Amino acid sequence: MEMVKEIEKMAALSQKWHQAGKIIAFVPTMGYFHQGHLSLMGEGKKQGDVLVVSLFVNPIQFGPKEDLAAYPRNLQRDASLAEKEGTDVLFVPEEKEMYPEGYQTYVKVTQLTKYLCGVSRPGHFKGVTTVVAKLFNIIRPHIAIFGLKDYQQYIVIKRMVRDLNYPIKIIGCPIVRETDGLAMSSRNVYLTSEQRPSALSLYKSLNIAQEMVNKGERKAKNIIKAVSTFIQKHPYTKIDYVKLCHPETLEDLEEIKERALLALAVKVGKARLIDNTILGVK
Amino acid sequence: MEMVKEIEKMAALSQKWHQAGKIIAFVPTMGYFHQGHLSLMGEGKKQGDVLVVSLFVNPIQFGPKEDLAAYPRNLQRDASLAEKEGTDVLFVPEEKEMYPEGYQTYVKVTQLTKYLCGVSRPGHFKGVTTVVAKLFNIIRPHIAIFGLKDYQQYIVIKRMVRDLNYPIKIIGCPIVRETDGLAMSSRNVYLTSEQRPSALSLYKSLNIAQEMVNKGERKAKNIIKAVSTFIQKHPYTKIDYVKLCHPETLEDLEEIKERALLALAVKVGKARLIDNTILGVK
Repeated sequence: MEMVKEIEKMAALSQKWHQAGKIIAFVPTMGYFHQGHLSLMGEGKKQGDVLVVSLFVNPIQFGPKEDLAAYPRNLQRDASLAEKEGTDVLFVPEEKEMYPEGYQTYVKVTQLTKYLCGVSRPGHFKGVTTVVAKLFNIIRPHIAIFGLKDYQQYIVIKRMVRDLNYPIKIIGCPIVRETDGLAMSSRNVYLTSEQRPSALSLYKSLNIAQEMVNKGERKAKNIIKAVSTFIQKHPYTKIDYVKLCHPETLEDLEEIKERALLALAVKVGKARLIDNTILGVK
Repeated sequence: MEMVKEIEKMAALSQKWHQAGKIIAFVPTMGYFHQGHLSLMGEGKKQGDVLVVSLFVNPIQFGPKEDLAAYPRNLQRDASLAEKEGTDVLFVPEEKEMYPEGYQTYVKVTQLTKYLCGVSRPGHFKGVTTVVAKLFNIIRPHIAIFGLKDYQQYIVIKRMVRDLNYPIKIIGCPIVRETDGLAMSSRNVYLTSEQRPSALSLYKSLNIAQEMVNKGERKAKNIIKAVSTFIQKHPYTKIDYVKLCHPETLEDLEEIKERALLALAVKVGKARLIDNTILGVK
């Protein structure tokens, strides 16, 4: 595995691969790898001739009161894990090269970013689409792979790619969970052992919701109420949102017809956790 | 010359050229070609192995009160002119394919667009950068060529390309003028024969300004006053702006040190005309 810091060097590698007719698979990350990241890399390895993983804690997707400074980092461990997954190039650009003095260009998806995390994290998705557009232009992948834990991000990126005509196939990979069900997240390190059972309430509530649907419940407000009540029973939890919405448009649903996205954002202690599932009518 | 309507077909051609190691030169236009456009094509022909010219009257760069509907069009004549210049592909996408239902992604350069035409045409440059980003992703050129009559557009595109890491070289070509000095523009067709001498006041005033500088004038406000007064003496003219600014940042200058952009926007009858020059201290 090669570790590349310079944008120009990364772009030159990509050009070489294009001329050689190689299929480039790309996994963008902020590092501190867990099994979720590794599953994306595994998928990339399967789909492409070469696998590029980027590791960049993107400052412009963090709000002023968010955890940019505290965000966990461990480059040496990450490099070793990426290499084991068969990564060909780990791209680790520097902030001053990604956002040099005078930087002033942003890519914005206007509608899909108004819902869910877009409400409590204004500017977050603009930061995500901007950095992903940059990475796409540098790496020029044929395939890019995202985790479905960040479901809204996946939908927003798909929209950006379609709207801006990027010739890139976007793949979403299933949420990877701990054995107890907690969705894997780099931010889980913020949880104390006392808070951990409360963090699990997110996953448990998704199951409660699917059971309600299995038993015939179709009304969004009843499901949302049951999920919220269940989470709130757990100490340290503070709900940001519990939403039942259309899986493509992210608009609120009043009733489940076939499929609905149940999406949660809950603060547990210092950690802002998200989780989601697609509720299906059987 | 091949005329291509479909985005997918254009992208496939581009991919084929990339794999064959061809250098792609690209000239984006809104059609109704004059010598200015043809000079850009000539430059593209010189610089690239293949030349793609796009012709698309981009609705999102027009304001609600602007001349989108009236904008002059003549595809047959344009195709014949482009072919004579050696264009390989004339790309003529359709509005409904460029901006399908649900379209919602925009590229914005935030600072450079606050000046000059950005003031009286809010949203204009956002429309320009968005469509150019789309065309860049479809055509994937190595080189793209813009006219310096739209000086601010050239600077904004260069900034977008640098900020978003497009691997594209941006070239600016000199303003092409009629024999009397009027800058060529598709919008010159809006001028009546009575208004034409007034339209020429833009070019004449640029020369007056350079003469003032040659004679030792360095104060922006004196130059702006002389230019404005000269233009206002002509009937049918209504000044939008007369600005002396830094050629890179577009910020107002109080004094000319080495080089300064003198940029004008003047309505002459129905036509909103722009012109500019770089004033140099000899």
